[in-house]
Amino acid sequence: MSAARIEVDYRFPSGVNAEKQAQILAVGQTAGSWDARFQHRDDILRSHLGEILRIEQNVDGSTQATVAFPLGNVDGGIGSLLTMIFGKYSLGGAAKVVGLRLPEDYGVRPRYGLAGIRKRLNIMDRPLFMAIFKPALGLSADDHAEILAEVALAGLDIIKDDEILPNLAGAPTLERWRACAPILEARRDRLGRDLLYAVNLSGNANELQKLARQLVTEGANALLLNVLAYGYPVLEALAADPEIDVPIFAHPALAGALSAAPDYGLSYALTLGTLMTHAGADAVLYPARYGSLPFPAAEEHAIRDALRGRGVAPVPSAGVHPGILPQILDDYGSEVILNAGTGIMDHPAGPAAGVLAFHEAWERWQTGDSFAPSAIPAGPLRSAVDKWGSAHG
Amino acid sequence: MSAARIEVDYRFPSGVNAEKQAQILAVGQTAGSWDARFQHRDDILRSHLGEILRIEQNVDGSTQATVAFPLGNVDGGIGSLLTMIFGKYSLGGAAKVVGLRLPEDYGVRPRYGLAGIRKRLNIMDRPLFMAIFKPALGLSADDHAEILAEVALAGLDIIKDDEILPNLAGAPTLERWRACAPILEARRDRLGRDLLYAVNLSGNANELQKLARQLVTEGANALLLNVLAYGYPVLEALAADPEIDVPIFAHPALAGALSAAPDYGLSYALTLGTLMTHAGADAVLYPARYGSLPFPAAEEHAIRDALRGRGVAPVPSAGVHPGILPQILDDYGSEVILNAGTGIMDHPAGPAAGVLAFHEAWERWQTGDSFAPSAIPAGPLRSAVDKWGSAHG
Repeated sequence: MSAARIEVDYRFPSGVNAEKQAQILAVGQTAGSWDARFQHRDDILRSHLGEILRIEQNVDGSTQATVAFPLGNVDGGIGSLLTMIFGKYSLGGAAKVVGLRLPEDYGVRPRYGLAGIRKRLNIMDRPLFMAIFKPALGLSADDHAEILAEVALAGLDIIKDDEILPNLAGAPTLERWRACAPILEARRDRLGRDLLYAVNLSGNANELQKLARQLVTEGANALLLNVLAYGYPVLEALAADPEIDVPIFAHPALAGALSAAPDYGLSYALTLGTLMTHAGADAVLYPARYGSLPFPAAEEHAIRDALRGRGVAPVPSAGVHPGILPQILDDYGSEVILNAGTGIMDHPAGPAAGVLAFHEAWERWQTGDSFAPSAIPAGPLRSAVDKWGSAHG
Repeated sequence: MSAARIEVDYRFPSGVNAEKQAQILAVGQTAGSWDARFQHRDDILRSHLGEILRIEQNVDGSTQATVAFPLGNVDGGIGSLLTMIFGKYSLGGAAKVVGLRLPEDYGVRPRYGLAGIRKRLNIMDRPLFMAIFKPALGLSADDHAEILAEVALAGLDIIKDDEILPNLAGAPTLERWRACAPILEARRDRLGRDLLYAVNLSGNANELQKLARQLVTEGANALLLNVLAYGYPVLEALAADPEIDVPIFAHPALAGALSAAPDYGLSYALTLGTLMTHAGADAVLYPARYGSLPFPAAEEHAIRDALRGRGVAPVPSAGVHPGILPQILDDYGSEVILNAGTGIMDHPAGPAAGVLAFHEAWERWQTGDSFAPSAIPAGPLRSAVDKWGSAHG
C-alpha cells in the first residue's frame, strides 16, 4: 500500500451493484463533483478523490470493493477518518466496512501496550491475570476496598471496575479510588510491584478528561474507557495527554451496535482492533469465543492479530474462568491478559481462591496435565472446575 | 412512566426467547447476581436491578421487551446510558433498541433549538434555508469566502461546512472562519440580521473543544459536529460549556452504522432523535425521504417527532432541491430548516439563484400553485425544476 493512502474494503450483499457503490464512495465521500466554476482548482480537487482499486466477487454472492482515499482528506484522527470512509454513506443502504489499512504513523500510538504493562508489573514470562469488581453496581467505596484487599496478595495483576459503573452519587469514582489506593500501596510495599486498577471513566468528554487527570494526580495507575459509548476522539485525547501517563484499557461496550450485523456497520476487527490501535488504547477487551458471548473464532482472531500488530494487549473476556484457560492459551500462548469477573469473584472459596485457581491452571497447562475434574487435585482449580467446568477434559 | 426510571424497548427477531433476553438485560446490565457475602447489601443491590415491564409479540413474528432501569444506575450522560442499556449486551446476538423514554430533565437541554435559532436570525414566519459549501474538499479559505459572498445577500439563513471537511493543512478551520467572518459582518450591517455559519469541528475530544472555543471567541455563530463519529459525550461537553454560546448543528454521519440494520443496533429515532435531544443538539440533520438517500417515511417522521418533542430543529437533508419543497412542507409545515448542498450550489444560474429558487418555491407553495415545470414562469425556480425535477407536478 502506498504510505500516503488509506485503503478500505467494503462488502456488499448479493444484488448490490458494487461498481456503482464504489464510485459513490470514491467521489461522494471525497471532493464530490464540481462544475465549470472550479476548473481553476481542478488539480487540487482531483487530488482529493478516492480511487477504486478493485472489485471482487465472493463465493457467497457478496461483492467486495477496495477504495483508496488520499491521506490529505483527513486530519490524522479517527473521527474524520470514520466520517470520510463511512459517514454519510452509512445512511444509504446495506454495506459493511470489512477492511482498513492505515499508514503506520496514522493517529495515536499506544504508549504502553502489552510490553509496557508487563514492564510496569515486572512480570515478563506468563499471562497476566485480571479481575473485575462484582457486583457491578451497589457497592460502596469501602466495599470496593474490601474486595480489593481480598485479591491483592493472591497474585492478581490487574483489576478493573465493571464498565457499567459510572461516577455515581452512591459511590463517586474518586472516593472509590481513594479507598482502594492504600491497599495498592501496601501491596507494592509488600510484593515490590504494582497491581494495576483500571478505574472506569465517565461524564461528558470534558468532565471525563478532568476526572482522568485527577485520578492520575492522585496516583491511579490505569484507566478504563467504554470507547464506543464515548467516542474514539475521547480515547485519543486521553492517549495524547502528557499528564495521563498510565495504561488505558478499552472496553468493547456497544461495539455490537456497530459490528454485529452481517451486512451493516464495521467489522469487529476494525472497531475493536485496528481503530483502537490507532486511537491509543494500550489493552482492548473483547469476547473470548469460549466464553459467555457467542463470538466466532475468526472475529476473535482478527481482533487479536490487529491488536498485536501494534503491540496492544489482547484481553479476551466475558465468561472466562480457570477451566477455559487451556483453550485461550492454545490460541494466544502467554502473550495475553486473561480477564475474569465472576470467574474470579464468585469462586466457591472466595475471590482470592479465584486468583489462585488461575495461577494453578497456568502451571498445569505448562506441564500438559489433564483438566478433567477427576485429574485435578483438591484445591482452588478443582473447585473452579467443579463449578464452571473445563476444556481439554 | 415513573420519573425515576428509564424505559427501553428491545426488539428481537423471531426465534429469540424474549423473556430470557429481558431477564439478562434487567439483571446482567445492572447489578448482576450476587452471593451470600453481599447479603448485608441486599436492599441496595436490589435497588439497582432492572425490571421487565412487558413482553409483546409483534405481527411480523418478532418480539418486543420493555425493561425499566433505575435512574440511579447512570450519571445523567449518554455515555453511561448507552453502556447500561446496550453496552456488553450488544455483543451477544441479534437485538435492536427501538424505544427509549427518559425523564424530561435527563442530560443536557438544547440551549437554542429552532425557536432560539429563529430568534438569532429574526425570522419567525417561514422555513429556514440552509446551504452547504461544495465541493466538500479542495477549496481554500478564500474560495469559501467567495462562495459565501455569492449567497450571503440572496436570502440564505444558514450555511455549513461539508461534514467531511476537517481541520486540514490546506484549509485550516480557523483560516476558513477568518476569511468568511468579514462577509457575515458586512451582511449583518446591510440586512440587520445574522447569517449562521455552522463551522465543522474536528480533532481529538480535547482539541475539538478548544477549537470550538477559539471559533466562538473569534465570532463564529454556529458549530457543526459529526456526533456519531465523535461521540455524544463530545456534544454534551460543547452544549454544557458556557463559553460556547452558539447553536450546535448535529450531522448524522455514521448513524447508519448504528441504525441501518433491521435486527441490530439502535433505531434512527434514537440515534438521531431522542439521544441528540438529551445531549444538547440545537438542530439535527437527517435524510429526507424524498431526497437522495432511501429513508423510510416512518423513520424520518419518528426522528422529526423526537426532535420537536424537545424543541430541536429538524433538518431534513440529502438530495434536497427546490422542486421537492412541497413534499417536505406537507410533512413539516414551516417549522423546519431546509438544507441543500448541490441543490443550491449547483443551480444552473449559480448559488445565489439556488437560494432565490427556494424562496420562490416557498412563495409558490403558499399560494398552492402547481410545481409542474410548464406552470412555473422563467426564473430561478423554473431553472431548478428543469434541472432536478419537482413534486406535485
